[in-house]
Amino acid sequence: MAKADLIAPSILSADFARLGEEVTQVLAAGADIVHFDVMDNHYVPNLTIGPLVCEALRKHGITAPIDVHLMVKPVDRIIPDFAKAGADYITFHPEASDHIDRTLQLIRSEGCKSGLVFNPATPLSYLDYVMDKVDMVLLMSVNPGFGGQSFIPATLDKLREARRRIDASGLDIRLEIDGGVKVDNIAEIKAAGADTFVAGSAIFGAGRDEDPNRYDSVIRAMREALARGA
Amino acid sequence: MAKADLIAPSILSADFARLGEEVTQVLAAGADIVHFDVMDNHYVPNLTIGPLVCEALRKHGITAPIDVHLMVKPVDRIIPDFAKAGADYITFHPEASDHIDRTLQLIRSEGCKSGLVFNPATPLSYLDYVMDKVDMVLLMSVNPGFGGQSFIPATLDKLREARRRIDASGLDIRLEIDGGVKVDNIAEIKAAGADTFVAGSAIFGAGRDEDPNRYDSVIRAMREALARGA
Amino acid sequence: MAKADLIAPSILSADFARLGEEVTQVLAAGADIVHFDVMDNHYVPNLTIGPLVCEALRKHGITAPIDVHLMVKPVDRIIPDFAKAGADYITFHPEASDHIDRTLQLIRSEGCKSGLVFNPATPLSYLDYVMDKVDMVLLMSVNPGFGGQSFIPATLDKLREARRRIDASGLDIRLEIDGGVKVDNIAEIKAAGADTFVAGSAIFGAGRDEDPNRYDSVIRAMREALARGA
Amino acid sequence: MAKADLIAPSILSADFARLGEEVTQVLAAGADIVHFDVMDNHYVPNLTIGPLVCEALRKHGITAPIDVHLMVKPVDRIIPDFAKAGADYITFHPEASDHIDRTLQLIRSEGCKSGLVFNPATPLSYLDYVMDKVDMVLLMSVNPGFGGQSFIPATLDKLREARRRIDASGLDIRLEIDGGVKVDNIAEIKAAGADTFVAGSAIFGAGRDEDPNRYDSVIRAMREALARGA
Amino acid sequence: MAKADLIAPSILSADFARLGEEVTQVLAAGADIVHFDVMDNHYVPNLTIGPLVCEALRKHGITAPIDVHLMVKPVDRIIPDFAKAGADYITFHPEASDHIDRTLQLIRSEGCKSGLVFNPATPLSYLDYVMDKVDMVLLMSVNPGFGGQSFIPATLDKLREARRRIDASGLDIRLEIDGGVKVDNIAEIKAAGADTFVAGSAIFGAGRDEDPNRYDSVIRAMREALARGA
Amino acid sequence: MAKADLIAPSILSADFARLGEEVTQVLAAGADIVHFDVMDNHYVPNLTIGPLVCEALRKHGITAPIDVHLMVKPVDRIIPDFAKAGADYITFHPEASDHIDRTLQLIRSEGCKSGLVFNPATPLSYLDYVMDKVDMVLLMSVNPGFGGQSFIPATLDKLREARRRIDASGLDIRLEIDGGVKVDNIAEIKAAGADTFVAGSAIFGAGRDEDPNRYDSVIRAMREALARGA
Repeated sequence: MAKADLIAPSILSADFARLGEEVTQVLAAGADIVHFDVMDNHYVPNLTIGPLVCEALRKHGITAPIDVHLMVKPVDRIIPDFAKAGADYITFHPEASDHIDRTLQLIRSEGCKSGLVFNPATPLSYLDYVMDKVDMVLLMSVNPGFGGQSFIPATLDKLREARRRIDASGLDIRLEIDGGVKVDNIAEIKAAGADTFVAGSAIFGAGRDEDPNRYDSVIRAMREALARGA
Repeated sequence: MAKADLIAPSILSADFARLGEEVTQVLAAGADIVHFDVMDNHYVPNLTIGPLVCEALRKHGITAPIDVHLMVKPVDRIIPDFAKAGADYITFHPEASDHIDRTLQLIRSEGCKSGLVFNPATPLSYLDYVMDKVDMVLLMSVNPGFGGQSFIPATLDKLREARRRIDASGLDIRLEIDGGVKVDNIAEIKAAGADTFVAGSAIFGAGRDEDPNRYDSVIRAMREALARGA
Repeated sequence: MAKADLIAPSILSADFARLGEEVTQVLAAGADIVHFDVMDNHYVPNLTIGPLVCEALRKHGITAPIDVHLMVKPVDRIIPDFAKAGADYITFHPEASDHIDRTLQLIRSEGCKSGLVFNPATPLSYLDYVMDKVDMVLLMSVNPGFGGQSFIPATLDKLREARRRIDASGLDIRLEIDGGVKVDNIAEIKAAGADTFVAGSAIFGAGRDEDPNRYDSVIRAMREALARGA
Repeated sequence: MAKADLIAPSILSADFARLGEEVTQVLAAGADIVHFDVMDNHYVPNLTIGPLVCEALRKHGITAPIDVHLMVKPVDRIIPDFAKAGADYITFHPEASDHIDRTLQLIRSEGCKSGLVFNPATPLSYLDYVMDKVDMVLLMSVNPGFGGQSFIPATLDKLREARRRIDASGLDIRLEIDGGVKVDNIAEIKAAGADTFVAGSAIFGAGRDEDPNRYDSVIRAMREALARGA
Repeated sequence: MAKADLIAPSILSADFARLGEEVTQVLAAGADIVHFDVMDNHYVPNLTIGPLVCEALRKHGITAPIDVHLMVKPVDRIIPDFAKAGADYITFHPEASDHIDRTLQLIRSEGCKSGLVFNPATPLSYLDYVMDKVDMVLLMSVNPGFGGQSFIPATLDKLREARRRIDASGLDIRLEIDGGVKVDNIAEIKAAGADTFVAGSAIFGAGRDEDPNRYDSVIRAMREALARGA
Repeated sequence: MAKADLIAPSILSADFARLGEEVTQVLAAGADIVHFDVMDNHYVPNLTIGPLVCEALRKHGITAPIDVHLMVKPVDRIIPDFAKAGADYITFHPEASDHIDRTLQLIRSEGCKSGLVFNPATPLSYLDYVMDKVDMVLLMSVNPGFGGQSFIPATLDKLREARRRIDASGLDIRLEIDGGVKVDNIAEIKAAGADTFVAGSAIFGAGRDEDPNRYDSVIRAMREALARGA
């Protein structure tokens, strides 16, 4: 049951002074979903953006799926806020909830798709008994919340293992990758099993500010690399 | 040593999809400084915006003072991030630091002006031995991080007491008020001792979205009320 | 505006195997309100009873006021649970809430009377700006959560100071005392300003188990001591 | 080495106003052990009952084993309190102790039987190196501390895996199940490997309050279902 | 009731590779008590030394009073460890205990003298109701746990206020000062009310390592400055 | 790729009053590396020694590798302090870091060798995706931070499993054991896969204090036992 590849620009690398315009342009350039990185200065040493910013995108007319990655601890209190603010996916780290099964149920009960995020060193055993409650598995290929990192090679093996678990389940679950994804390595990452690709600076760092079409070429290049294969 | 009144729009009520434009317009309408509310979902039950958004305003060409109100706990780690991101004032709650004197020194050593924020119930005794390290005293006239509140009347007495402490010190310290400030009550609040006035929905809720001058009338009305007096 | 003296047996010293019967008997013996001590093994090193036990008393037909003393941290999440379970008063320690004014408002918005509790060493300055939101001031005359203590004498001065603050406010606020209250010292405690008297072992330790009237004499003795004065 | 099936009513569903009577009646109706749910409003969002209530049952003459399930974090400080209060089993969640092996030793050194509790999503790998220190494995088939849930089907596979681990160890370890157990599914749960069955509302919700034998029929029905098999 | 001046070298500035010898020499040079700084990397961003090191000094034959300053949070668990390890004084920060009165009692019940430590910004109101349980008041004249600071001038006023409180109590309480104390300012500090003087680098930084008498001159200079007065 | 056996005395059992001399003597007696136990009174219920003590050893002329075992939580802030203080190895518990991969990278970026420590009950699955970032695996054969324990037998199986993982990786990784190691069992422990042996009281408890060669015989006995084999 192969799924269509999704390109998910991380708005953390966009220009926050004109976020609506940035997101509109990147979607127009062919991106599929909006990746929304939430950090609370506790689970990771950084604080980014919260539900109000998500809601502003919806009011601005963005209708593409918004994929909220919670790098916060604890997670339960803020989930309904993001559901109300227009999130489609809400994913969280298993270490950040004392009651993982319950948190997954909470996300779904709020009308969103649920997911678990795995830090580079986090074992996949957290999936053992909750596959039927997960719509997305997100593997981090860098350490979240820290700048200037490149793709951790051990993630490729982990992708293959996650792919095996998903295929064995027969369930409709996306396998997303986040960290150091570029035109150069996206095909190899797909070959290892990913079907949803987060990219931040690789996309938003492209082109010149004044060019409304500056995201077209990098997204086109990613699509071509995905089509060509590894 | 009376200081000029400063009007400080809280960008929490602005449109985050086009924040640069909003801030540019409100400053053009006569606002003096940009009030920047940072919440971490721990000290208060909400998560708003962090250093990246502050930095984006600076890159967008905003040169007015940015007045960062940290509703986070603990506070020390994130202070250098905001200094680097372009903050002018950084204020924090005394309950959020185990080492208040040290945190005030840290803010100044990063090149910013420092301040303490007092929740409605917080006694002013935290000021007893640090007046010489404070550039701003911010009194909350609502409880930070919770919506839908109006100005707490007991704050007027507290303003008078804070004013007495500031005047007795002979130091150059701003007295800011945040919460439920409107055209209707701003003169009375000034009469009680405030010289810096945060307003969120009272300003950004004004006028129609498509009108670039929609903030002019409310800010003009506030100025007139301040000039008339209580 | 002198208030009637209230005797408040702390059910922590009652027999939990037949709590409904115990509370019925102590009220029949003349007690006025039920003091309900909630400990969470975090704010104090003990864990006692929660909302389900409060609700069971109501279902058992207890209609006297229930005075819930929260020795928990944080406090906001559990307040609606106790309101629903039938509490009349809910009091908490100022050190246990980052947003004291807001917590007091929350208690009232849930339909209960609100109060602040002061540990033996806690200064009364937490009352400076919230007198109008407080229905009860509870002074601890022992350290909550630790066994085998006797009445701390410095509390008498603190009672006098609290009494001055309450009288100066002109507001309808009860002044409650908890810890080491006995027939021997209750008159002196009243003379210092208290009008509500918590007693645990002094009441429930009285008489023999099989005697349904075993609480009569101790409560009568307290009443007489209160009437006689110090 | 098949063990006798034990039925363990959770007193969380009993009437706390006359707990001694309730427990006496449910044991007279054929229940084997008393399941005692301790919540601290930190590990789970609820606060229930502590050592004093356990001790009151013992003083009331209850001699059946008391099986204390700690939904608290951290756990070490309160363990001796429960041992002194008369607990037979003390079980805790591995996520709630930084030193699981040590906590298991502590429970035994206090003269109790020790156990680990697994939330629905918690992997069984916590058992890898401590089987010789465990007298009971408790699998949660709902999320502890949240109301209104039904038996999570994935627990059946987990029961089979836990049963394999216990049988392979050759050790004398009980396999307990808690959450959504009813007359309808108890046989299937036994078939998956459980030998100790916690039931709360299924038992205490039965019959009319005034009937002293109201727990007989539901416990008899459970025994019959267990005897019949899946 | 003037007390003798005590000089208290802080062993944090001594050579930890031969601590017994260092302490012996500094006491031989005329120091009165050993100041022992305990940091836990939580209350302050540093971790120093614990009970084992204190005990080693006792076993090494040090009989002078050891004055343990706890910069840890929470404090209760470690107090008996230090009592057993030979501490004479144990002081802690009021912000680090939820139950200040109880912690003071605990220290005395372990056979030690008790004290409260005030950070530069901490108000003295924590003393309001516990003067009778305090043997020492320690004012920090730098922020504890951070290096390279000099004496904060506002501490002189605070010393005068603390002196007034102590004298008014009529109790036998030491007033200690810690941070930036040197030969140059020790007389002025004494004039403001201190009677116990902690000094670290001012003492241990003196002289050459190989000289066993290298601490004599600095301690003599301090004594002379104290004798001369401000 | 068999590695030379290393004997690592834990200085926690040395005399802290003359630590430089103790360490010099134990190295002269044939020990290979210095094991340095850091406890923060949070991750474990004890507080020991920090970076200043490590630095003092270096200034005292100790050049042997120093192997810092962090029993602290969180870990990241203190790692650069220990690197600066002269540590060679820095190991931490996976439960004590939210970002294990990142912490391992941080240790290496500070110029040290990195390692993970496993409590007796901690599963080895934390190694699944970080073998290439680990220079040492440390298995605890007692519970860290608690006194008076003996070697936990289940650790032998765990050593064999860790050995298999290390050998399968083909990487240069030490396998260290800590807790209850003695002359009597060191050969058996080596046979199970360990190559680095921490011993505290077994070494420092040997001989009489006045004998500068008192560590020779016990270390020689350990070497002989290692040479003989199990």
